[in-house]
Amino acid sequence: MKHELTIGLAGLGLIGGSIAQALRNRSDKYRIIAWDRDSKTLEKALSDRAIDIAVTSELTEFQACDMVFLCVPVYAMKTVLEMLMPHLRPDCVITDVGSTKGDVSRIMAEAGVSDKYIGGHPLAGSEKSGYQAAKANLFENAYYVITADESTPEHRKQLLKSVIRDLRAIPLEMTPEEHDRVTAAISHVPHVVASLLVNLVKRLDGPEEYMKTIAAGGFKDITRIASSSPELWTGICLSNREKVLQTLAVLEEHLSEFCSMLQQGDKEKLTDFFRTARVYRNSFADMQKSIIQRDFDIVVDVEDKPGIIATIATALAQKGINIKNIGIVHSRENEEGALEIRFEDQESMNAGMETLRALGYGVKARV
Amino acid sequence: MKHELTIGLAGLGLIGGSIAQALRNRSDKYRIIAWDRDSKTLEKALSDRAIDIAVTSELTEFQACDMVFLCVPVYAMKTVLEMLMPHLRPDCVITDVGSTKGDVSRIMAEAGVSDKYIGGHPLAGSEKSGYQAAKANLFENAYYVITADESTPEHRKQLLKSVIRDLRAIPLEMTPEEHDRVTAAISHVPHVVASLLVNLVKRLDGPEEYMKTIAAGGFKDITRIASSSPELWTGICLSNREKVLQTLAVLEEHLSEFCSMLQQGDKEKLTDFFRTARVYRNSFADMQKSIIQRDFDIVVDVEDKPGIIATIATALAQKGINIKNIGIVHSRENEEGALEIRFEDQESMNAGMETLRALGYGVKARV
Repeated sequence: MKHELTIGLAGLGLIGGSIAQALRNRSDKYRIIAWDRDSKTLEKALSDRAIDIAVTSELTEFQACDMVFLCVPVYAMKTVLEMLMPHLRPDCVITDVGSTKGDVSRIMAEAGVSDKYIGGHPLAGSEKSGYQAAKANLFENAYYVITADESTPEHRKQLLKSVIRDLRAIPLEMTPEEHDRVTAAISHVPHVVASLLVNLVKRLDGPEEYMKTIAAGGFKDITRIASSSPELWTGICLSNREKVLQTLAVLEEHLSEFCSMLQQGDKEKLTDFFRTARVYRNSFADMQKSIIQRDFDIVVDVEDKPGIIATIATALAQKGINIKNIGIVHSRENEEGALEIRFEDQESMNAGMETLRALGYGVKARV
Repeated sequence: MKHELTIGLAGLGLIGGSIAQALRNRSDKYRIIAWDRDSKTLEKALSDRAIDIAVTSELTEFQACDMVFLCVPVYAMKTVLEMLMPHLRPDCVITDVGSTKGDVSRIMAEAGVSDKYIGGHPLAGSEKSGYQAAKANLFENAYYVITADESTPEHRKQLLKSVIRDLRAIPLEMTPEEHDRVTAAISHVPHVVASLLVNLVKRLDGPEEYMKTIAAGGFKDITRIASSSPELWTGICLSNREKVLQTLAVLEEHLSEFCSMLQQGDKEKLTDFFRTARVYRNSFADMQKSIIQRDFDIVVDVEDKPGIIATIATALAQKGINIKNIGIVHSRENEEGALEIRFEDQESMNAGMETLRALGYGVKARV
């Protein structure tokens, strides 16, 4: 059978493995060649039929590739690129999936492959890692940033975008500089701040540990990401050092402005400060697209009575529709309870809504 | 019938209404007299049988009270106290439920009732407000801070603690100063920081709104509390101004230390910073008591197969056990999926565990 495109994957972890599985789901359009330093992972991927060819040391197979994804950490990028380069065709598109883009672009420029390289960063992930955590729907409805400059040939960008759409992700183009500035503000700095808040409590708490004892819901929520891998986040901050420092400088400035307002007891300015934040934060909900890992949730109008969860779950199970979660929810607007159901995917969600409507329930998709 | 204690409630909102309902559940031990500026609320509470006597303008009924709870916002505390004072017996214990304690203690001192006053702050709440949101189990397993100084008579503290235990809450004694320092660090400053992060993104985002578009899960979590009431949080920050400013000063100091580490590219210190935060943050999970609103969750070992949710929900419904939520969960430790079920209370949870064990399922309570 003739495949349309041959894809090379260097690294079969969470991201590389998920790319293989997602592209394999697009019928026989793709032929997938994979390298990983771990031969057991390659064997597993072969037996899953997620990849067609496994390569350990003999890299000549990569000559067949139309596009190569470097799915290794930023610190390993240079080594893996040098290992593969002698085997890549001149027209092969090189892309990566690293968390920062300025650093990787510089590595590619130094290796003299800027014209072949387009940066990539799928904004999807999991707290898990490794091939065993990979899944075909990891990228579904997620943004996938690609970074290019004016010199990047248009047909190469288009080719990468078409592959990204086959992963069911949404390509979003920006410069490496823009990417790193954006992720500094919405990801890297919030991580630093969460860790700062935790360390602040550690420092300020007394021997009675009152703070730790009563650390309330809000504090646990805002600091949850402080539990992430220290090594990973040190790497990210160092790799995006300049942008993270610039963003922290603006935060410092805002923080001291807030302190002045509070010092002066300026009620009006303080209310403005909190109100501006609330209005802007609430506007995120309007951007349905901003939900990285889109959830397939519906809300069903039901009376909150014993057995209602069993009744609805059974009705769906009888139609063979699987659900991920079902529970009573209470909204912020003092509404009565309603039943919320989360499905695996769009298809189950549609089937579920149809089934429940046929039974006379009021149903709507949750935005 | 002889009641053991007569309790006065000034204000029947979320907290006042929940105190009434919770004490009413302790059989006939309590006689409850309530005042509220809204006569409809009083009527509703009377018809719910949550209170025994409703008072609008004629406050002489409060002479019968052994203890009075001031359940009004901090800014209304002085007025309501002055209105009630002429009607209170000299031995009546006065307490409140305000979010800050230094300010309220000063109001009480100025009114010359320091010897009768013990401060209170139940660390339980809801994003909802008003009597219609009140519920008898609001305080279940929550910490309830009481603030007293050396001059506070021991028997008054003991009386308040016994009432708090009847609310099913856990009394925790500290000074007003300690309370305000602790809540500044674990509640007030995190709220300010969440709003700062949101306003930072608003300021730094470009016309393409890339940041808003891809605001990731982590960012949405850490900034969720920025959606709280601007007026409420302005009031809290002003009322606890000194402690909030002191805590923000330490945060500023830590922030600039972090910036130096990053500027210098000190990998070891950066990893230490993130690791310290992770270890300390993870230690919160060990403190089961730190869960303010305790959830009654169990984990059931099941295969993740279609219809399993319906099967389990039906088994519980047949025994008349109501559930709040049921869903497949995946833990961080790469375990297989398991089913998590949330119950309303301890009793349903115990009955649920028994039922599922009898059916041969492996079941454990989730900490």
